[in-house]
Amino acid sequence: MKLVGIDLGGTGIKAGACDETGRILDSKSIPTGLGDGPEAVLDRMAQLARDLGADKRVGVGSPGLIDHANGRVLESPNLLTMQGVPMRREIARRLGFAERDVILENDANCAAFGEQWCGAGKGESDMLLVTLGTGVGGGLVLAGKLYGGPGGMAGEIGHVCIDPDGPPCGCGRRGCVEQFASATAAIRRAKDKGLPRAKPGDLVQLSRLAREADGPERALLHDIGRDLGRGLGMVVCLLDLRTYVIGGGFGAATDVLEAGIRVGLRDRSYGDRLQSVRILPAQLGSDAGWIGAARLALS
Amino acid sequence: MKLVGIDLGGTGIKAGACDETGRILDSKSIPTGLGDGPEAVLDRMAQLARDLGADKRVGVGSPGLIDHANGRVLESPNLLTMQGVPMRREIARRLGFAERDVILENDANCAAFGEQWCGAGKGESDMLLVTLGTGVGGGLVLAGKLYGGPGGMAGEIGHVCIDPDGPPCGCGRRGCVEQFASATAAIRRAKDKGLPRAKPGDLVQLSRLAREADGPERALLHDIGRDLGRGLGMVVCLLDLRTYVIGGGFGAATDVLEAGIRVGLRDRSYGDRLQSVRILPAQLGSDAGWIGAARLALS
Repeated sequence: MKLVGIDLGGTGIKAGACDETGRILDSKSIPTGLGDGPEAVLDRMAQLARDLGADKRVGVGSPGLIDHANGRVLESPNLLTMQGVPMRREIARRLGFAERDVILENDANCAAFGEQWCGAGKGESDMLLVTLGTGVGGGLVLAGKLYGGPGGMAGEIGHVCIDPDGPPCGCGRRGCVEQFASATAAIRRAKDKGLPRAKPGDLVQLSRLAREADGPERALLHDIGRDLGRGLGMVVCLLDLRTYVIGGGFGAATDVLEAGIRVGLRDRSYGDRLQSVRILPAQLGSDAGWIGAARLALS
Repeated sequence: MKLVGIDLGGTGIKAGACDETGRILDSKSIPTGLGDGPEAVLDRMAQLARDLGADKRVGVGSPGLIDHANGRVLESPNLLTMQGVPMRREIARRLGFAERDVILENDANCAAFGEQWCGAGKGESDMLLVTLGTGVGGGLVLAGKLYGGPGGMAGEIGHVCIDPDGPPCGCGRRGCVEQFASATAAIRRAKDKGLPRAKPGDLVQLSRLAREADGPERALLHDIGRDLGRGLGMVVCLLDLRTYVIGGGFGAATDVLEAGIRVGLRDRSYGDRLQSVRILPAQLGSDAGWIGAARLALS
């Protein structure tokens, strides 16, 4: 059986086909072309699904808050023109599928499901994917299933408060994890310290310098890791999760963040179980979204 | 079909029988008599199950960390003599049941499942039960199922940190919800303010005074509610839960805590969804544990 998944983004649409074990058979990527209007975007998504051989079902990941009852994106700052468009129905119509055979889900949730299915979280029934990018996002897989929560917004580790007196956040509150551990925050924190010494704002270089020597770069990444770990400590308390997969652009620094993350976990949770906590770099990169969407087409 | 549940506690064993809809048919309560040794306690539990008409399966709730693989209580400060006892096997043997037909679960998780099945959370697939007693405990029902997490300790809202500079907690950290909103903390906070005005340490009177007039008692319960709400705000971020059931002795004050809880929720989470959050007093009292255990015998 061939599974097809589509990952809609603000600038590009990624899609692919895999088999029932998650082995990648084919993948494609095209520009979204939001400026051409929603009909054109829907046409492109359907065409991609057709090109990849979807014959009965397709999974679709999209940024934003998903209205599962009506199969559409309710709110998405990066996909304004697609808001409210009956995406599930329109893609089904274009492909000649039943509407129930187009499975629409939030893209971060899809990525979490992808990593759990055949990436870093393979074999784990329960995990949190944390994405360190412009913001800090997340997706939860609990008891082997994607968990979006009653409103579909579960997994928002980025807006867990670790310091009520911390820096202000875009959500209107203070001290959210996002303000300490996103790629954006890391760049800001590095600049504040005049790091990395050569090229300001270069997180790849910052991570490399931290990896190579016990200098100020390593100290900074330790602090950033600790702050992320303090947020994850809440997840240990609430969900007793043991597997954390770190993705997004800055997730490539997981190896140098890990020591700090473990300090932060210990700051905000307790028990011997911390020894069994695993901090893993994501493995699927930007394919995680469509792979998770494809997995949704299997269930 | 008759469902039987047993709720083992440090001082008493509560047990009962209900039908498949949760209608209570019978209930009993006897002293645990821990001093008589584990064999005697197991005998009493089995006898209760027999008296209540368990003929094939029985659910058992116990304080402490449950070792599901081996059907025993691993750690429980209030049941030291029962630690490590192969409870599931021994109860099954006494009743002539298969071991798989004795379902052992943490008591707070059982209470959450009970409230979700036929108490305050009836009809909700996702909820958190928060118990305000000596400490602050919790149990999660997610997607209609009890969620204990990979290690069985999920739902520990009492040790979520709301203020890293807050008072020290028994868990070794600072500023845990438990230090602000347990019955114990409420009594301490009331004493610090010289409240309630007549009888120090009386939470029933404190709540009544808060209910009756806009005085210092109401202000205190607002603050306590706010602190609890700040912890629940993390749950909104992580799980997008909308239903919170407040139990335990101090849960009787839910009506006067609610306004503060909502302020705290707004302090630590965001979005229109807060309008749909429901704060409900638990309905089953001390029956919740055995009812939830009985429900486990149904699945």
